[in-house]
Amino acid sequence: MWLQRTITLAPKPRGFHLIDDELISSIPELKNINIGLMHLLIKHTSASLTLNENADPTVRHDLERHFNHTVVEAAAFYRHTDEGDDDMPAHIKSSIIGVSHTIPITNGALNLGVWQGIYLCEHRNYGGSRQVVITVNGE
Amino acid sequence: MWLQRTITLAPKPRGFHLIDDELISSIPELKNINIGLMHLLIKHTSASLTLNENADPTVRHDLERHFNHTVVEAAAFYRHTDEGDDDMPAHIKSSIIGVSHTIPITNGALNLGVWQGIYLCEHRNYGGSRQVVITVNGE
Amino acid sequence: MWLQRTITLAPKPRGFHLIDDELISSIPELKNINIGLMHLLIKHTSASLTLNENADPTVRHDLERHFNHTVVEAAAFYRHTDEGDDDMPAHIKSSIIGVSHTIPITNGALNLGVWQGIYLCEHRNYGGSRQVVITVNGE
Repeated sequence: MWLQRTITLAPKPRGFHLIDDELISSIPELKNINIGLMHLLIKHTSASLTLNENADPTVRHDLERHFNHTVVEAAAFYRHTDEGDDDMPAHIKSSIIGVSHTIPITNGALNLGVWQGIYLCEHRNYGGSRQVVITVNGE
Repeated sequence: MWLQRTITLAPKPRGFHLIDDELISSIPELKNINIGLMHLLIKHTSASLTLNENADPTVRHDLERHFNHTVVEAAAFYRHTDEGDDDMPAHIKSSIIGVSHTIPITNGALNLGVWQGIYLCEHRNYGGSRQVVITVNGE
Repeated sequence: MWLQRTITLAPKPRGFHLIDDELISSIPELKNINIGLMHLLIKHTSASLTLNENADPTVRHDLERHFNHTVVEAAAFYRHTDEGDDDMPAHIKSSIIGVSHTIPITNGALNLGVWQGIYLCEHRNYGGSRQVVITVNGE
């Protein structure tokens, strides 16, 4: 069984945001899959997707601070500067964290660790809505 | 053909460890697959998986040192500090390196480069055993 | 439908290079797939693959400069130094950026964002030709 759907995530402020509910509610067919995989691609180059701790919001804060600290705005060597100081760092963070993920499906649900959540990492100050292609394959 | 299995990796000290043998020995059915993919998810937020050089142990040492150097313990801006100085850096490294991988299967074996091995990256001082969901799809 | 092919990318100078055309032209069967996934693995430990901005070449320049800035050559703690100053940084960058990617296929074509291109990230000064295993699964 194959299923593919493109969803639009509501605009979010710069930072790390749990999107499990937005994703899962858009694929009610998950419950019919015994073994499978769900693939996600965010169709942008200044945002990313990751899995990380889903309980304590300070983790999301610290992730944002870490990446701002190591991928600086207005580095002297940047040439891609026309779209604002937050733009080139957003591209870099996108390649570090990654724009796609694959998650196992087991007995009709995503098979994540108990502390794992799916994050949208919004690297722009005003990124707007973001599109994610969801592709599910399973039996 | 679909196959899914959750394995528990023996506890390992902080650092980068080759786990090819632990993984492959748990999936004897690999030899029956002509073309396919093997997906791995580590169900934790303070460890990660990567592919890297499988021959010279100094590479593993230098990877550990690099990530300790760039993702520091006890950064002044960390708020998620209750679980020890090695905890928040472990979450950050987990999102940089990644918690899942997909590897091609060809003629009954993983199709990796001759120098590529699969690493468990243990980012905690005492991470304990780690669970990996293995999902195989192929023909 | 499964399809798997190993291609050899022409040698490229150190830096970030768009390879969409080299990849897509090697899989003419893409046009027959309605829904599916294309998986890529680069079979090396000193190069990587990423998705990023496909229009302005300054983005590629700034990515190369960023990673050279944060993953330095000849760090005092490196022990893996026999193959040149560019070797250990190449291994590190490979684990940060990643060696595999999965891209959705929709209506006979890769379903990427309008600004997304596929990059070979060549981290060695003289990396030579690079092999990529392409695995396609779809219907």
